[in-house]
Amino acid sequence: MKRIALLGSTGSIGRQTLEVARAFPERLRVEALAAGSNTALLEKQAEEFQPGLVHVGEKGPSLEEIATHPDVDLVMVATSGKAGLIPLLSAIRNRKLVALANKESLVIAGKLVMEEARAHNVEIRPVDSEHSAIWQCLQGEKENEVEEIGLTASGGPFKDTSQEELAKVTPVEALNHPTWKMGRKVTVDSANLMNKGMEVIEAHWLFGAPFDKIKVVIHPGSIVHSMVKFSDGSIKAQLGEPDMRLPIQYSLSYPERWENAGLPQLDFASLSSLVFDPVDLDRFPCLRIAVEAGRAGSTYPAVLSAADEVAVDLFLSGKIGFIDIARLLHDVIEQHHQISEPTLEEILEADAWAREIAQGWSK
Amino acid sequence: MKRIALLGSTGSIGRQTLEVARAFPERLRVEALAAGSNTALLEKQAEEFQPGLVHVGEKGPSLEEIATHPDVDLVMVATSGKAGLIPLLSAIRNRKLVALANKESLVIAGKLVMEEARAHNVEIRPVDSEHSAIWQCLQGEKENEVEEIGLTASGGPFKDTSQEELAKVTPVEALNHPTWKMGRKVTVDSANLMNKGMEVIEAHWLFGAPFDKIKVVIHPGSIVHSMVKFSDGSIKAQLGEPDMRLPIQYSLSYPERWENAGLPQLDFASLSSLVFDPVDLDRFPCLRIAVEAGRAGSTYPAVLSAADEVAVDLFLSGKIGFIDIARLLHDVIEQHHQISEPTLEEILEADAWAREIAQGWSK
Repeated sequence: MKRIALLGSTGSIGRQTLEVARAFPERLRVEALAAGSNTALLEKQAEEFQPGLVHVGEKGPSLEEIATHPDVDLVMVATSGKAGLIPLLSAIRNRKLVALANKESLVIAGKLVMEEARAHNVEIRPVDSEHSAIWQCLQGEKENEVEEIGLTASGGPFKDTSQEELAKVTPVEALNHPTWKMGRKVTVDSANLMNKGMEVIEAHWLFGAPFDKIKVVIHPGSIVHSMVKFSDGSIKAQLGEPDMRLPIQYSLSYPERWENAGLPQLDFASLSSLVFDPVDLDRFPCLRIAVEAGRAGSTYPAVLSAADEVAVDLFLSGKIGFIDIARLLHDVIEQHHQISEPTLEEILEADAWAREIAQGWSK
Repeated sequence: MKRIALLGSTGSIGRQTLEVARAFPERLRVEALAAGSNTALLEKQAEEFQPGLVHVGEKGPSLEEIATHPDVDLVMVATSGKAGLIPLLSAIRNRKLVALANKESLVIAGKLVMEEARAHNVEIRPVDSEHSAIWQCLQGEKENEVEEIGLTASGGPFKDTSQEELAKVTPVEALNHPTWKMGRKVTVDSANLMNKGMEVIEAHWLFGAPFDKIKVVIHPGSIVHSMVKFSDGSIKAQLGEPDMRLPIQYSLSYPERWENAGLPQLDFASLSSLVFDPVDLDRFPCLRIAVEAGRAGSTYPAVLSAADEVAVDLFLSGKIGFIDIARLLHDVIEQHHQISEPTLEEILEADAWAREIAQGWSK
């Protein structure tokens, strides 16, 4: 029986994690639940799963207490934004199994997180479908024989939208993703490929891959979740229906795989046609900006991530346009004075600085 | 330094094996060469690679002597037809590393071969691109978590040919495979999907998979070489340009992967479109006949394989038509009185019987 602490239980990943837990009552015990504000749903969840520890808003044990509690074997970090970082580090330092759905913690503090993970011999299990795919493709393979990582991107709702039309995109249109059902922030990030840029940074840290070796390729069907090319030229890919419960479950069941009749099954014969296209960085500058921030390192990715949270809020509340998000990110990064080898405090300061600048941004 | 014995060095797989050996003079030493009749080419090969042991026709050490020689670490069985079986068994019994390009030995005597391999703790390394793909997908995974194997088939030159037109197919047309350059026998077998049927039997034995769990899917591009679906619904696929040197090399380099600039490289961005179609068993009855023979077991697959060798010869020499191959196979199998749990001798007797009946076959 694996005892799980679920941080961010009322979000999209949190709710799907509980669906997986519900399917395996003899293998998974939900020992702790934590959520930010959706008290009504959290109460329902607590009633069903009867966790020993419950945190909501400011009440109950802190996220760090939950992430380090002796009754917890595995911490699923499914909070959004930078709130996942501190409990993630606590879990690592306490040698918990860690499943990571929160990409921001690797984007803003990947170096620190991976150093702690190495120091404490903790393997971080990715939950993002792309990173889960890469992780699966790497099973039984050697890290030093990885030649390239092929990160697939659905291309989002505006894959074929012209530059002129992108300027007129509304929040409702941006929130209508063709293949994945996700939270609002990540859905907008997927529409302008900012999400893919953050995933490149995430892959860089998770798999120790140089940025040059991480390639983004558009794959509208979201069936091939990512690929790895090895030194002999052989490529492995992982495929499945676009359903987050599969990578969530794998992060919990690893190194085993569990049959789950509740998951949609993909048939070989129904694969039909898998299409791949190059990515157009002119129409999707957020991807370029994000990868450049990742490559520059230091406090740049933290600034990128924080400014993007503000930018997406401004876009969703109608204060800036869709293509202004990239402009805002570009301008905030331009103004930033990086701190190399930043401490956690310096990262959080850069984050706060970026939010302030982003809030005051105007075209 | 791995010291290799190459049985069947003048055939298509043999020549490509030597191309791989040529690329890695510090890792691979060709210790033995054996060929059936192409003396001129064998002499050239011997001059270049200076093997300690050379067998041609009836001259030199026997194939069994080569396969069991103390100077040999790995035996590549690339002979065609049933000639590979005896040296394969000798190599296994002497605990050599074995790379198997000869599918007939598993088709006709899979049970015996795998029993010997288990008894001597020898892992048979597949060389067929499909089986290499499956083997690669299985790395780091558990055999009891395999849900299904998806064996891809290019569909051959007659993928879209009508039943009426199939009756008129000439040897020249059948020898013109759209994606793979191979020997004549296997090219004809690929054109009527007999080869895929034999590969199903081969996969059954190599990976211990029940026939129900092995699915054939048409994939005209020959980029996805095969797939494995696991118990949680996750699918892994192996991709690469259709070039036998990659699976050959992997069978030699395993568990390592070696960079080889001489191999064509597949780019993620150039994948473009991967198409999959269901297989039409009405137009390709050989696939059904082969799988049924595999399922029936005993001496049926040996009869199938032997009768097919004769049938392809008859077709190539213009004595029977393309669609007569399936009729011949059907008739010979119908007449066969199976011997269950056959010994090697009984298998070879069934083989001889089938050749005789096949030779005398008429519509």
